[in-house]
Amino acid sequence: MANPSLLILPGDGIGPEVMAEVKRVIGWLGEKRGLAFDVSEDAVGGAAYEKYGVPLDDSTMAKAQAVDAVLLGAVGGPKYDTLDFALKPERGLLRLRKEMDLYANLRPAQCFDALADFSSLKRDVVAGLDILIVRELTSGVYFGEPRGIFTEGGERVGINTQRYTESQIERVARSAFELARKRAKKVTSVEKANVMESGILWREVVTRIRDAEYPDIELGHMYADNCAMQLVRAPKQFDVILTDNLFGDILSDCAAMLTGSLGMLPSASLGAPMANGRPKAMYEPVHGSAPDIAGQGKANPIATILSFAMALRYSYDLGDEATRIETAIEKVLADGVRTADLMGPEGGTPVTTSGMGDAILAAL
Amino acid sequence: MANPSLLILPGDGIGPEVMAEVKRVIGWLGEKRGLAFDVSEDAVGGAAYEKYGVPLDDSTMAKAQAVDAVLLGAVGGPKYDTLDFALKPERGLLRLRKEMDLYANLRPAQCFDALADFSSLKRDVVAGLDILIVRELTSGVYFGEPRGIFTEGGERVGINTQRYTESQIERVARSAFELARKRAKKVTSVEKANVMESGILWREVVTRIRDAEYPDIELGHMYADNCAMQLVRAPKQFDVILTDNLFGDILSDCAAMLTGSLGMLPSASLGAPMANGRPKAMYEPVHGSAPDIAGQGKANPIATILSFAMALRYSYDLGDEATRIETAIEKVLADGVRTADLMGPEGGTPVTTSGMGDAILAAL
Ligand SMILES: CC(C)[C@H](C(=O)O)[C@@H](O)C(=O)O
Ligand SMILES: CC(C)[C@H](C(=O)O)[C@@H](O)C(=O)O
Repeated sequence: MANPSLLILPGDGIGPEVMAEVKRVIGWLGEKRGLAFDVSEDAVGGAAYEKYGVPLDDSTMAKAQAVDAVLLGAVGGPKYDTLDFALKPERGLLRLRKEMDLYANLRPAQCFDALADFSSLKRDVVAGLDILIVRELTSGVYFGEPRGIFTEGGERVGINTQRYTESQIERVARSAFELARKRAKKVTSVEKANVMESGILWREVVTRIRDAEYPDIELGHMYADNCAMQLVRAPKQFDVILTDNLFGDILSDCAAMLTGSLGMLPSASLGAPMANGRPKAMYEPVHGSAPDIAGQGKANPIATILSFAMALRYSYDLGDEATRIETAIEKVLADGVRTADLMGPEGGTPVTTSGMGDAILAAL
Repeated sequence: MANPSLLILPGDGIGPEVMAEVKRVIGWLGEKRGLAFDVSEDAVGGAAYEKYGVPLDDSTMAKAQAVDAVLLGAVGGPKYDTLDFALKPERGLLRLRKEMDLYANLRPAQCFDALADFSSLKRDVVAGLDILIVRELTSGVYFGEPRGIFTEGGERVGINTQRYTESQIERVARSAFELARKRAKKVTSVEKANVMESGILWREVVTRIRDAEYPDIELGHMYADNCAMQLVRAPKQFDVILTDNLFGDILSDCAAMLTGSLGMLPSASLGAPMANGRPKAMYEPVHGSAPDIAGQGKANPIATILSFAMALRYSYDLGDEATRIETAIEKVLADGVRTADLMGPEGGTPVTTSGMGDAILAAL
C-alpha cells in the first residue's frame, strides 16, 4: 500500500521557518515510529507569485486535489500589498479552499494551562477554556456574486454579495453537530438574523437539522455582535460555535486571542469524503505570516506542529500519534520553554524556532 | 425663541426604566439651571408594534425628522422573535437611522477608572482606555439590494448585498477625521480589502480623503479579523477606529465589553447639518433592551444619561452642562454607588435604577 501523502505549502513570512520544524517531526515519525509519508512541497501565496506569477499555480492545485492532506504555513505580506486583487497571496489560499470545497473550518480556541497568565484576560476567565469554532469556509460574502467595483451615476460603488443556499448551511451544520457529539453537546449558531435575511435562512436551516437529526444536541442562537461581547465577557459559556465565513473569520480571531496563545492554535479545513473515506483536508495554523518577525528565528512553530497533529487525527487515522505530539508539547510548555511570543512576566527559558523544535523532539 | 426639542423613544425591555432617570435629569436642568426642553415621547420597536401595529409609525418618523434630537432607549425582546422580518422591533430602529440619514455612529469605548477591575481583561490592559469607534450606519449590508430569501434550482438561498458608494465612504471618513482632530489625531480604518472589493474601495477612498483634506491625521489600515484580535490584545493602541456598518456592529460591541462597563456606554448617531446648523441626531445607550432584567429596577441608567449628555454637547451646544453631568456620574462611581451590573468583587453600595438616579441628582 502506498504511504499516506502530504502536500506541504510553507507560503510566506514565517511559514517556511515553522514548517521546517514540522518536517523534523515528520522525520521523527518515520525513524522512530516507522510511519512514512509521501511528502511533496510547493509554493502558495506570495511565494507562488514569485515562482509562477500567480498566487496558486494550476499544477499546485492539481497536487492539492490528489493528496490525502495539505499542510499550509501562512500567506501574505506588505510586499504584495500593491498587487492586483487577483494576484494577491490570499487568492491562492481562497482558491484552495474553494476548489477543494473545504466547507468546514475547525478552529479550536484552547487555553493552555501553562500559558493562562499570558492572556490579556484574567486567569479565571480563560483558564481551561476549550471552545471550537466551526466556520463555513467556501461560501458567503467571500465568494458571492455579483462582486467588484462598478461605476454608477458617475461614482464608483464597491459590491460584495452574501449568499447562502440551504444545502451550504445544512452540510456545515452537520459538521458542527457531529463535532459537538464528541464534546459537550452544545452548539451556538451565530448570525445577524435581526438584520439580514441570509441570517434568517441560516437560523431556520440549522434549527431544522438539529430537530430532525441531532435532538441530543443543545442548540442556541446568538447575534454576531453579542457573540463578540460574550467571547470577551465569559468565553467558557461556549462549547461549539457554528457560524458563516465572514463572522467566523472575525469571531475565531477574537476567540484565538483570548487564549493568549495565538502561536499555539491549529486549524483544520475539511470537505466531503474522498474515495478512501477520509475527508478532503487542509491544515494550517490560525496565526498569519507575521512578516515583521520573518527570518529571525523568533516564530513559534507549535501552531503548525499542532496543525500537523490534527492531520494525523482527521486525515491519517493516527489519533494516538497526534496525542503523543500534543502531550510532548504540553510537557515542553510546562517545563517553561518559551519562544518570544510566549515570554510572559513569569519568565521561562527563551528559545528560537528551531530551539522549540529541539525541545519538542527531545520530549517525544 | 423656541425651546430646544427632544423626542424620547424609550422602546422595549429596560428602555422605559432607564429613560425615567433621564427625565429626572432633564427636570433638574429645567429647575436648577433654567434650561427648558420641549420634550415629546413616543413608541419604537416592540412598544410601537403594540401601540401602532408597526415597529415605527409614520407619525413618529415625522416627529423624529422635526426635532433637534432623538433619545432612544433600546428595542427588541424574545416576545417579538416570531414576528415577520418587516415587523421586528429592529426595523423601527433601522428605519430611524436610514430615513434620518444618520450615517456616522459614534461609539466611545471608555474604561472608567473606578470600574477598571470590573473588566474581564487585566487592569493594565484596559485602565485609561479611551477609543472612539466611528461606524458607518446607513449603508452596507444592512440596507443593500438585492436582499431576501429566494428559490433557485429547487432550494432556497438567503441573499444580502454589501454595497458602498464613494460618497457614502467619503462622508463618514470626514466625520472620523474631524473627530480625530479633537483627539489623538490617529485613525485606523478597518475592512477586509484582502477578500472584498467593497473593502478595496473603502481603503482607497479613506486614503484619498486623508491625503487631500486631513494630512495632519495619522491613518492606518487593518483587516477586521486582526482588529478584533488587537482589541483583545492591546486596545490602547487605538484612537479612532473607522469602519463599515457590519464590522462596526461587531467590533464596537467587542470594544464596549472590554471596558467592563457596558451599562455605562453612550452613543451618538449623526447625520447632515439641519437648518439650525446642528446635525440630525439620535442618541442611545450601547447596551440592548435586556429583557431578562426588565421591570425589576436592576438596570443601570448611566449609559442613557450619558447619551443625553452627548445630546447636550453635540445637539444643544451645552457642552458645559454635559461635563457637569459626566462629572457627577464619575463622583457617584468613585463613591462606590453600584447598580447590579457594576457590582464587582470589591463591593460597593448596591442601588436600584432609581437609586442610581437619586445619587446622580444628589451629586449634581
Ligand atoms: C488570509 C485571509 C484570506 C483569511 C480569511 O479572511 O479567511 C484569514 O484571515 C483566515 O482567517 O484564514
Ligand atoms: C438592534 C440591531 C438592529 C442593532 C444593529 O445591528 O445595528 C444593534 O446591534 C446596534 O448595534 O445598534
